[in-house]
Amino acid sequence: MELTLTLAVNTVWIVVSSALVFIMHAGFACVEAGFTQSKNTANIIMKNFMTIAIGTLAYYFIGYSLMFGSDSSGIIGWNGFGINPGGSPDGLPLNVFWFFQAVFAATCATIVSGAVAERTKFNVYLFFCLFVCSLVYPLTGHWIWGGGWLAQMGFHDFAGSTAVHAIGGFSALAAAKIIGARAGKYNHTGKSNTIPAHSIPLGALGVLLLWFGWFGFNCGSTLSADPEAIGIIAVNTVLAGASAALAAMLFTYIRDKKSDVGMTLNGCLAGLVGVTAGCDAVSPNGAIAIGIICSIVMIFACEAIDKKLRIDDPVGAISVHGVCGALGTILVGVFALDGGLLYGGGWHSIAIQSLGVAACGSVALISATLFFQTAKSTVKVRVHRREEVMGLDEAEHGISAYDMLGL
Amino acid sequence: MELTLTLAVNTVWIVVSSALVFIMHAGFACVEAGFTQSKNTANIIMKNFMTIAIGTLAYYFIGYSLMFGSDSSGIIGWNGFGINPGGSPDGLPLNVFWFFQAVFAATCATIVSGAVAERTKFNVYLFFCLFVCSLVYPLTGHWIWGGGWLAQMGFHDFAGSTAVHAIGGFSALAAAKIIGARAGKYNHTGKSNTIPAHSIPLGALGVLLLWFGWFGFNCGSTLSADPEAIGIIAVNTVLAGASAALAAMLFTYIRDKKSDVGMTLNGCLAGLVGVTAGCDAVSPNGAIAIGIICSIVMIFACEAIDKKLRIDDPVGAISVHGVCGALGTILVGVFALDGGLLYGGGWHSIAIQSLGVAACGSVALISATLFFQTAKSTVKVRVHRREEVMGLDEAEHGISAYDMLGL
Amino acid sequence: MELTLTLAVNTVWIVVSSALVFIMHAGFACVEAGFTQSKNTANIIMKNFMTIAIGTLAYYFIGYSLMFGSDSSGIIGWNGFGINPGGSPDGLPLNVFWFFQAVFAATCATIVSGAVAERTKFNVYLFFCLFVCSLVYPLTGHWIWGGGWLAQMGFHDFAGSTAVHAIGGFSALAAAKIIGARAGKYNHTGKSNTIPAHSIPLGALGVLLLWFGWFGFNCGSTLSADPEAIGIIAVNTVLAGASAALAAMLFTYIRDKKSDVGMTLNGCLAGLVGVTAGCDAVSPNGAIAIGIICSIVMIFACEAIDKKLRIDDPVGAISVHGVCGALGTILVGVFALDGGLLYGGGWHSIAIQSLGVAACGSVALISATLFFQTAKSTVKVRVHRREEVMGLDEAEHGISAYDMLGL
Repeated sequence: MELTLTLAVNTVWIVVSSALVFIMHAGFACVEAGFTQSKNTANIIMKNFMTIAIGTLAYYFIGYSLMFGSDSSGIIGWNGFGINPGGSPDGLPLNVFWFFQAVFAATCATIVSGAVAERTKFNVYLFFCLFVCSLVYPLTGHWIWGGGWLAQMGFHDFAGSTAVHAIGGFSALAAAKIIGARAGKYNHTGKSNTIPAHSIPLGALGVLLLWFGWFGFNCGSTLSADPEAIGIIAVNTVLAGASAALAAMLFTYIRDKKSDVGMTLNGCLAGLVGVTAGCDAVSPNGAIAIGIICSIVMIFACEAIDKKLRIDDPVGAISVHGVCGALGTILVGVFALDGGLLYGGGWHSIAIQSLGVAACGSVALISATLFFQTAKSTVKVRVHRREEVMGLDEAEHGISAYDMLGL
Repeated sequence: MELTLTLAVNTVWIVVSSALVFIMHAGFACVEAGFTQSKNTANIIMKNFMTIAIGTLAYYFIGYSLMFGSDSSGIIGWNGFGINPGGSPDGLPLNVFWFFQAVFAATCATIVSGAVAERTKFNVYLFFCLFVCSLVYPLTGHWIWGGGWLAQMGFHDFAGSTAVHAIGGFSALAAAKIIGARAGKYNHTGKSNTIPAHSIPLGALGVLLLWFGWFGFNCGSTLSADPEAIGIIAVNTVLAGASAALAAMLFTYIRDKKSDVGMTLNGCLAGLVGVTAGCDAVSPNGAIAIGIICSIVMIFACEAIDKKLRIDDPVGAISVHGVCGALGTILVGVFALDGGLLYGGGWHSIAIQSLGVAACGSVALISATLFFQTAKSTVKVRVHRREEVMGLDEAEHGISAYDMLGL
Repeated sequence: MELTLTLAVNTVWIVVSSALVFIMHAGFACVEAGFTQSKNTANIIMKNFMTIAIGTLAYYFIGYSLMFGSDSSGIIGWNGFGINPGGSPDGLPLNVFWFFQAVFAATCATIVSGAVAERTKFNVYLFFCLFVCSLVYPLTGHWIWGGGWLAQMGFHDFAGSTAVHAIGGFSALAAAKIIGARAGKYNHTGKSNTIPAHSIPLGALGVLLLWFGWFGFNCGSTLSADPEAIGIIAVNTVLAGASAALAAMLFTYIRDKKSDVGMTLNGCLAGLVGVTAGCDAVSPNGAIAIGIICSIVMIFACEAIDKKLRIDDPVGAISVHGVCGALGTILVGVFALDGGLLYGGGWHSIAIQSLGVAACGSVALISATLFFQTAKSTVKVRVHRREEVMGLDEAEHGISAYDMLGL
């Protein structure tokens, strides 16, 4: 009876957490649509929407088994197609575990859709989504969460600053670099032009939906209804997002005399990405510090990527998910109450965390480079310039996202 | 103590599931508003909003008692007005059971609001909502879930492909037929014109909110925190929606060379509607098959209803909820692991499932026909043509849904 | 083991409820943005967003300790900075209790942002948010929920009609009065002009998100997974919102021949605010009555505040949260099954409820008056008239909330 009740409580907890992670896809769709142009709105939403569909199915057929199947030399798993035993902790039904993992998997690919928005062919993106969710994410996911070599070394990435966000963000970096900038983004002198967001309320609603879902993302990664762990993770998740939003707002206000809306919203996300790896391991004050650090670093990263590297990332996904995913993972080595540099743990943890970030980031960079270079030299990755100017909604789907009848 | 804990876990599970079902009303409002014209946006949202209010109150005062009260001859129940004992399973407080049932009830009526959008009088719709939630839905609901004759025969509709969706969809068919097409929908040769959606992001957000809520709708229909049942239902719900979305996208891409946004979003809903009856009874592969079948059938149904039958259904509610609700219910007889045709169960289950669909669909068709024909011949069901052209927001509520100050 | 399971169930329940309360911030942002002008949309959303950030951090550093720390003479608490033991009930981890309280705290301040929208300086509002969440809300919160003098007298405010909503609403009254009306709101004869909502779908989505979140707000205030309490609270919350929405719709339809969209949406919120104090203590019929009363009173209050008092409250926050928060608290003395006037309890409860409302309302009025008068006479509380006409999005943040490319 106690076992049954334990199973019941854990199931309720993880299914509700999974639903919260699921609604993050609505958050991503709103953020990416809101922060880009209205002529590409239906297309970006379709990319996000199909990411759920393709990501879930790819993860069902082979991704899950590669990630949580029986380990081979610490590199990869396999237990056959579909939902096979493996990875699921005691006290959680296999299907519930799979459901939670599946809603996570699609999150990784959807990060890329923002960075390549407004110029990438719809079908190329969909094949990339298939590629990431069936192969790349499961591979590094196996290393981190599936009992692979990083897990064996003690690499700590509780809810996926690296496993989800950095993999997505580094893939986004390679993709955006290869695909090139949107028409009109850089003029002939190399100066960066701002292409304005088409709907701030849509983007802001998206950020709030993401933060809401993040309570499932981080707290649900306990994989059981562990009261103390859930409590501290919830506290750290709300405080890191809060301190990060405040830091970005104050920083842009002090520097530019106007508090920047886009940076404040992205700042919040940067803090959430950053705290994800160590949300179970740091103190509330540590979470606040991680939020502030990630937020400020994200602002500089966005500006450097845009103006120095001249890589066009319409929604800042590389900085938010890539840079802050990596940074947050490494900061576990600084702020973790058990083993962090600030708590007498020395440099050991930082070294392992950095190694994990480097290894996983390299996989993401290399795999995305191979994918998009291959696509570029065969089927082309960009829509025609004429289609880009016309807008992808019309070019790819034959519709307009808005029809306001003269409003 | 164990009993108390069991009650506590079940209560938490069902109240959270109920909240998820509740947010489906926001999903319906966004879908129906997004896929119709901006001059009717406030009106369609008010219809959805008042459906919650009227539906919940109607179900409170008499609907619940008719559905779950003491059975009379398998036809109808009654236990007095308000929340009376009846129907609530062991291990779930009566008020919690009622809450879950109440948020379901209003869902049925709201399906109709989409099919009759942009031309139907506000007050006629509200009386129809009262009629459905106090009488029609409870009647067939009693047959299916309240111990009535279909339940006694072994009819299987786990979370309401028929009880909710087909009842709504078949009512919508009768209503849309009687009310007639929107002005300008068909020209004098009978050719169907497309009246474009006014906001794809609003509609897409609605679909994502619906999918999110569907995890409560399907998984919560366990009525207890049953770990294994919840797990397989969650898996089937996410896979059916995913395969259905992908099928619609690929089908329209292959046939029309452009992936259709509206059909993809509706395809996802069609798959979710279809899997609802058997989400507890089929395998993940079965759920994927159901999703694909329902999605493709929905596309043909939409086109046939629009172009052959010339019935104007602005959001495709008849096809998504009516056709796929019926189809999904019958497919339980094919794909159910216990008793399905594919698993050696023979034709028995298909026969019972079809009988249930026919009986409940007939009730919906007849009751809606009676209601709308009566209304048509007395108070009129349509707004004046002048009001329809002006828009129902201005005509019925004296406002404009948008005031963008020149944007 | 039983203790562990009890802790687990309570933790799951309260963390999920907290997440639902958190999404109310998205609801407030949508409501306040939707019901105001498009030139101020980014600004109002930033105010709501920063309210979460500042409110949570202020509550973390000192607010929580003042509210739930060791009591001094029934007036105020203190246990040191940060999350210290105090207030957390048996069977709930301290961090989980804090998380639930923190998401509540920010709600109070965000109510004010609606009433002062479209003319108030961004930084003045942010300091007010800091002031409320670190001092005002914790002070009266201590009286009501932290073991202070009102708690000792038997004042009943289960989920915060007074503690959250009336504090917010009375602060809003003082603030809106001192700040003055928006440019163009009243002409030289004192006649009130309607400044139209810029997006009804955004506002309506906000109301639905608020209602959704209210199930966490009210049901989660049990602070444990108490099956019977959660059940009746959920029932009362859905019925009060439903009856209130219906009452407002019918009232405006009968009086004005058109059902008013804004009043119907606000009516629903008024009913939800009203039932919050007694959602655990009244019957379903009592909840319906409270919903109707609060909805109708809200309509008259809105009109009186706008036309008689000539206080410009763009979203009706004073009436919805202030008036109905106070009214709902007093109505506990009428409708409570144990001790209410209608159930033979005499006037004792009404007296205590009224005393509590008067005391807390006075604190809110006086503190907000002091804050905004001080700000007015030093740094100015309003933006320049030129900035107000231009819009706060451009003036304060240098952007436009929408860029629709000619749509």
